[in-house]
This record gives sequence, structure tokens and C-alpha cells, in this order.
Amino acid sequence: MKDKKRPLILITNDDGIKAGGLVALVEVAKRIGDVVVVVPNESYSAMSHAITVKHPLYVKQIKQKKGVTLYKVSGTPVDCIKLAINNLLNHTPDVVISGINHGSNSSVSIHYSGTMGAAREGAINGIPSVGFSLLSHSYDADFTYAKPYVKKILKHVLKNGLPQGTFLNVNIPDSSDLEGVQICRQARGKWVEELIEREDPRHRKYYWLTGYFKNFEPDAEDTDEYALAHNYVSVVPCTIDTTDYQHYNILKNIQDELQV
Amino acid sequence: MKDKKRPLILITNDDGIKAGGLVALVEVAKRIGDVVVVVPNESYSAMSHAITVKHPLYVKQIKQKKGVTLYKVSGTPVDCIKLAINNLLNHTPDVVISGINHGSNSSVSIHYSGTMGAAREGAINGIPSVGFSLLSHSYDADFTYAKPYVKKILKHVLKNGLPQGTFLNVNIPDSSDLEGVQICRQARGKWVEELIEREDPRHRKYYWLTGYFKNFEPDAEDTDEYALAHNYVSVVPCTIDTTDYQHYNILKNIQDELQV
Repeated sequence: MKDKKRPLILITNDDGIKAGGLVALVEVAKRIGDVVVVVPNESYSAMSHAITVKHPLYVKQIKQKKGVTLYKVSGTPVDCIKLAINNLLNHTPDVVISGINHGSNSSVSIHYSGTMGAAREGAINGIPSVGFSLLSHSYDADFTYAKPYVKKILKHVLKNGLPQGTFLNVNIPDSSDLEGVQICRQARGKWVEELIEREDPRHRKYYWLTGYFKNFEPDAEDTDEYALAHNYVSVVPCTIDTTDYQHYNILKNIQDELQV
Repeated sequence: MKDKKRPLILITNDDGIKAGGLVALVEVAKRIGDVVVVVPNESYSAMSHAITVKHPLYVKQIKQKKGVTLYKVSGTPVDCIKLAINNLLNHTPDVVISGINHGSNSSVSIHYSGTMGAAREGAINGIPSVGFSLLSHSYDADFTYAKPYVKKILKHVLKNGLPQGTFLNVNIPDSSDLEGVQICRQARGKWVEELIEREDPRHRKYYWLTGYFKNFEPDAEDTDEYALAHNYVSVVPCTIDTTDYQHYNILKNIQDELQV
């Protein structure tokens, strides 16, 4: 029997079931509601909004205790959300939360992120959804200082909801001295010098993704990158509608030129 | 020696090197410019904006003739764009085109699409980019009637460019009687009843992604879905900026409530 007053919280991540960020997120969430965790059975970084179409998905229920049910799925973070909503849960969750990712998903990194793919999938399904990331790739990252912000934002979203098609991208500096929360827009930037070139033991050339992020507007105070650089938690409200309405108006005016 | 007057056209897809849609796209492009094709070495559908970070990428040059250079990559469509821009090409391409996908990428399907991931990656790198899709999943799909529209849009983009961060999502009905081009916004909708549940030969339950697209606003005349349903080619200008500016303003006003 579900306690009607306790919200149902669906959690996923892309760093695997033992990641400290997932443990931290569950610790926060289980004090607020009933928690169902549905995660990929291996680390699935940089899977973006990918789904598994070419082969079937297997699900394994791991344990159920103290209001936390846990499933492992042989798929991507977005697969996990689809499976949870369509097959594993008896009713629609009140919120989808994803993370806490080990590593930033600010600026254009949102496009590569499996953590944010899962949050976007929640939003596509009409569920208020938030992706959380800590600015540390360390396996032993410390989530102590992040947790109060996760709790605050989660409670806010459960109380106020989010508009249809809107989800939140929350990034948290790896710091014991956080300045507070800033609502931001996505900074313009990209990853540069991305591939190293080497030779394998059989003398075949290979490439490996690497590189660093370049911020195109480091002085823009309203961006997530600026907030994070100044030790603030960045919250970017994101939309599933990718339409560029400014360019829509421009193209609409010259539509005749595009006819065959 | 590159002819300065001929543009450099970078092509990728997610249906593999033998797909009819790729052949059709190359046929159109090679009459307009020098073509470099960099594609995944297998079909990589629904890979979204995923990149390969856990293992190296191998590249194989297949052939070079009549102004067309062809590479196969052991990665995703976005990997192909990154490799081409950073390592395989001597200078930045004038345009990135992706497809022609076998199957629609309209509405929210843009988020799952590897074809559109590649176009988005081009835009992130400041290159005018277009993803093309035909509304037929058939291996033997006929691209005859799509090609004049691909040519028209490609030439328009080469001549006029696109704003920084903007790319185009072009979907083409599978019809010999196309009505023309419509500039559209992304329709609201989602995929429903998505997973079938079965038992494998070892009596383990598995799930397989399936389902159908549900349009939330079938009467909205300005959407891609409406245009496609009425036999028009839909062109949605898309942005890499995922910020929801409407909700940004709302949250900015209550930022104080989010402080810990």
C-alpha cells in the first residue's frame, strides 16, 4: 500500500549502481518519498538520449528495503526511464531525478550527457524532472555539501512542479563553501582538441576522445559557466522543444525561395 | 589542390554505409561540392548525441574517386563528425549534412536520432548543418522525389549560412506528389506503449522497445507533424541552446526561495 502523502521518486544515473553520486541522491530522496531506482547495469557515460532498439533489455530487481526499490537494466539511462514508466512502476512517478553525476553537465555538455538524457525523457513523459551533477570526476567525490542543495531543489520541484516539457539542469561546484543557487542560461561553448592519435600493439592507428571545454562567453554573468566559476550552484531550466523561434521567423519570411 | 570555388561538404548518417539514403545524399552533394563521407561502420540508429569515451576509435579509408572521399569509423554519428573536423579534414567543411535517414525524425524523435545528433554536433562546431530524413523505414525506400528538395535546401544553406548554434531538421514524406516546403516548429508529442514483454529460450523475461508516436496537437498547422501529414517537406530550425527562457524568468524571480 502506497502512502498517499509520500511522493514517488524515480531515480536513475549513468555512472553505475555503486557510484557515490547515486548513493547520495538516494539518501536525500528516501527522506522525502518512496524511491524506485532504475539504473544501467554498467557505467554508461556520454550516452546522451540514446535508446536500445537493436536488442532486448533485461531487468534485474536487486533489493527492496526501507522504501527503496532497486532495479538494474541492460540499457541506457533513457531506456531505464522508459522501462520504469511503462513496465516497472504501478503509477506515474511524481518526479524523475538523475545523478548525481560525477562530472559537470553544464553548457553544451548537456547534449552528450546520459544523466541529462534521462531527465529530458522524464520531461517528454510529462513528469517534472531534474538532472544533478557535481563538478568532480573522482570516484571518491564528496557529496556532503551538494546534498542540501539537491534536497532544496527536489522539494521545490515536488511542491511547485515544472511546466510541460521543461526540466532542470543542476550543476554543483566541488566545494565546501558554496555561495548559493543561481538561475542561469546555458553558456555558449564547445569541446576542443578532442582526439588523441596513437598506434595500437598491432600498429593500427587509433583515436581516443579527450580535449577541454572552451567557454565562448566567459564574462557573461547570466550563464551556468559563470555561476559555477564563482562557486554558485547553477540551475538551467531546459526545454524539450528544440525549435529556434528567431530563425523560424526569418525562414518563414523567405519560404517561397525554398520551393522546388 | 582544392578548387576554391567548390564547397567542402561533410556527410554522415546512422544507417550504415550501404543505406540508400546515404547514396542519394552523396549523389546530390557531389554535383555541388567536394564530398567527404565519414560514417559509422555499422547501423547506429537511436544513438542520439552519444559519443564513444570508453574505448578507442578506428578509422578506415574506403575509397576516393570523383571528388568523394569515404571513411568508416568504429563509432557513433557524432564521433564521425568530431573525427572528421579534428583529424581527417584539412580545413573546416562549409556544411555538414546527415542522412538521408530511413525513417522520420520529426517532433521529439529529434532527441533519439543519431542523424540529428550529427547535425547538432556540426552546429556546436560553428558549421551550418542539416539533418535529412525520409518518412520510410524501408531498406528499399525511394529517394527520387526527396532529392530535389535536398538539393534546394543544401544550396540555400551553402549560400546563406545559418546563425551560430542553429541547425535544420528536414523531414520528407515518402511520396511522389510532394506539395512543397513548410518552415515549422517542433510538434509536441511522445512515444507511447513502448515496450513489449516476452520470455527468452532460457525463460528469462525481456523487454523490447516498440510503440507508436502520439501527436499532442494534431490540429496545430505550424508544426512539423501537420506539414508532413499534409504531404509537405517540414523544415524545423533547431537550436543547440536548450535554455527555457520563459521558465528562466519565472525561476529568476523566486531565486531567493531556492537558497539553502
